[in-house]
Amino acid sequence: MKVSIVYHSETGNTKKVGEIIAKGVKKVEDTEVQCMSIEEVDKEYIEDSDVVIFGTPTYAGSYSWQMKKWLDTCKLKFAGKIGSVFATENYLGGGADNAELAIISELLVKGMFVFSVGSSKGQPYTHFGPVCIKDGTEEQKERAEIFGQRVAKSAKELMNR
Amino acid sequence: MKVSIVYHSETGNTKKVGEIIAKGVKKVEDTEVQCMSIEEVDKEYIEDSDVVIFGTPTYAGSYSWQMKKWLDTCKLKFAGKIGSVFATENYLGGGADNAELAIISELLVKGMFVFSVGSSKGQPYTHFGPVCIKDGTEEQKERAEIFGQRVAKSAKELMNR
Amino acid sequence: MKVSIVYHSETGNTKKVGEIIAKGVKKVEDTEVQCMSIEEVDKEYIEDSDVVIFGTPTYAGSYSWQMKKWLDTCKLKFAGKIGSVFATENYLGGGADNAELAIISELLVKGMFVFSVGSSKGQPYTHFGPVCIKDGTEEQKERAEIFGQRVAKSAKELMNR
Amino acid sequence: MKVSIVYHSETGNTKKVGEIIAKGVKKVEDTEVQCMSIEEVDKEYIEDSDVVIFGTPTYAGSYSWQMKKWLDTCKLKFAGKIGSVFATENYLGGGADNAELAIISELLVKGMFVFSVGSSKGQPYTHFGPVCIKDGTEEQKERAEIFGQRVAKSAKELMNR
Repeated sequence: MKVSIVYHSETGNTKKVGEIIAKGVKKVEDTEVQCMSIEEVDKEYIEDSDVVIFGTPTYAGSYSWQMKKWLDTCKLKFAGKIGSVFATENYLGGGADNAELAIISELLVKGMFVFSVGSSKGQPYTHFGPVCIKDGTEEQKERAEIFGQRVAKSAKELMNR
Repeated sequence: MKVSIVYHSETGNTKKVGEIIAKGVKKVEDTEVQCMSIEEVDKEYIEDSDVVIFGTPTYAGSYSWQMKKWLDTCKLKFAGKIGSVFATENYLGGGADNAELAIISELLVKGMFVFSVGSSKGQPYTHFGPVCIKDGTEEQKERAEIFGQRVAKSAKELMNR
Repeated sequence: MKVSIVYHSETGNTKKVGEIIAKGVKKVEDTEVQCMSIEEVDKEYIEDSDVVIFGTPTYAGSYSWQMKKWLDTCKLKFAGKIGSVFATENYLGGGADNAELAIISELLVKGMFVFSVGSSKGQPYTHFGPVCIKDGTEEQKERAEIFGQRVAKSAKELMNR
Repeated sequence: MKVSIVYHSETGNTKKVGEIIAKGVKKVEDTEVQCMSIEEVDKEYIEDSDVVIFGTPTYAGSYSWQMKKWLDTCKLKFAGKIGSVFATENYLGGGADNAELAIISELLVKGMFVFSVGSSKGQPYTHFGPVCIKDGTEEQKERAEIFGQRVAKSAKELMNR
């Protein structure tokens, strides 16, 4: 099963968290994963993926306009895939939850099956995706990695892959 | 594949729309569907279902507190299932989109794979689920039925059932 | 009292609705109003305004990335002003409610007092701002004009202007 | 100027945070404040208030059904008042932002002017209201108190009281 992680990152924080999530994904047997900036995506790899995980910094309590522009204009077919989201923010309460939900509303319009693990696998919980303050405390990084693993494992189970 | 439709309905409108969606689900081969009020749910049937579709009236621009109470206290395991949502409202712009997204945020926490079809199958579009004014115009009823059919079909494809 | 209406419009629909709202604002004594595209705003006029009303088309179930980019990067001081929102969409259920709420979440971060009239003045209701399909049916246009008038009147009352 | 703080609290955490916010409100000259559980509100005091601040625990990533029931059924007139929100959650990322935004969407429908301070007064920021983990760390408590003071001060300025 192929997994794509697509992020927008200005400072490098969101990129780093994406790479941590990728580590978690790779722990699941028979998966491969590619981490991509919106500035240079491998379109073919994304279209071949069963799961796409989107990452954004938080701007003004929501996701970055660059991420929104990319989603609105990329013309990739996401329908029928599993979609998940993660976000970084500069301080607690910076609106990362809202940034995640705002992307999720677009993924639903694109016809994705949106999954955030939530509280369904016990601690650490991820509503509505993992959040890291900057590039994450040790605990936040661990949560991001577990999230990657859980998303990949749950997707495989659901799709009987 | 079993599909559950669970609704809260005071006036009967949301119930009627649930039954229309059920008609759409039944058009897909090898599916069975049960429509239930939150006041008397068949817990076993829900737990056996691969897909659960939730319906609510719109109260003050969001979903009904009765639906929220039921979701918060029902103690059913929804994790790993496909979750979808529909809503009724009394007039255009009554907040049904927001009611749908508010339920969706809870389904994500419960670990569901949330799916609304969106614009992925062409017209009629359903962001973030079908909406009917009261029990629906003919066009809105048709959209609800198509939605039921599309959700069931897409779920079967995703899960290789 | 000065009122600014700031919109992004590609097809001209959102611009037209902004102008209808402006007509409503002007019906309130001692108000003046200016309608501006994000492509050429009168920054001084906006900073002198007590009320700023933001308009957007709906893209993929949310607001346009151009509007988001402008909000994220404009560096105008909106804190302490009244903020309101309107949206256009191409068909019923296109996500205009969600587009409005997404902008509202940013206005809150900027320190605005956000007001949508809602159901507080009787019909026509505007949750979470008026919505027009394309440039609006007659009924939708009338609602937009009444909204402009109500926002201006309520703002004056609140601020004792 | 009268300020009402209305909360739902099961464990006592949300009540405690409400009382901290009240301390902040009282620091502003010529204000008085009353803290009330939804189980016994002083309806007359609320209707006489210029500002109402609503507090909720986070249930399943959103606000409590009890708070929603109270808001849907209380029949108090909130139109034209300033409305603000705070929330408690049991752990970071528990969905308190979403709980706050969900209440905010209802306050807009009721015709309130919604205000969260956001990032407009410098640190500590409060998008979309203060959040405390349980009854709050020292830093979170301080933020809640500052929030109360800022809301009261900004409301007075806006209304020329």
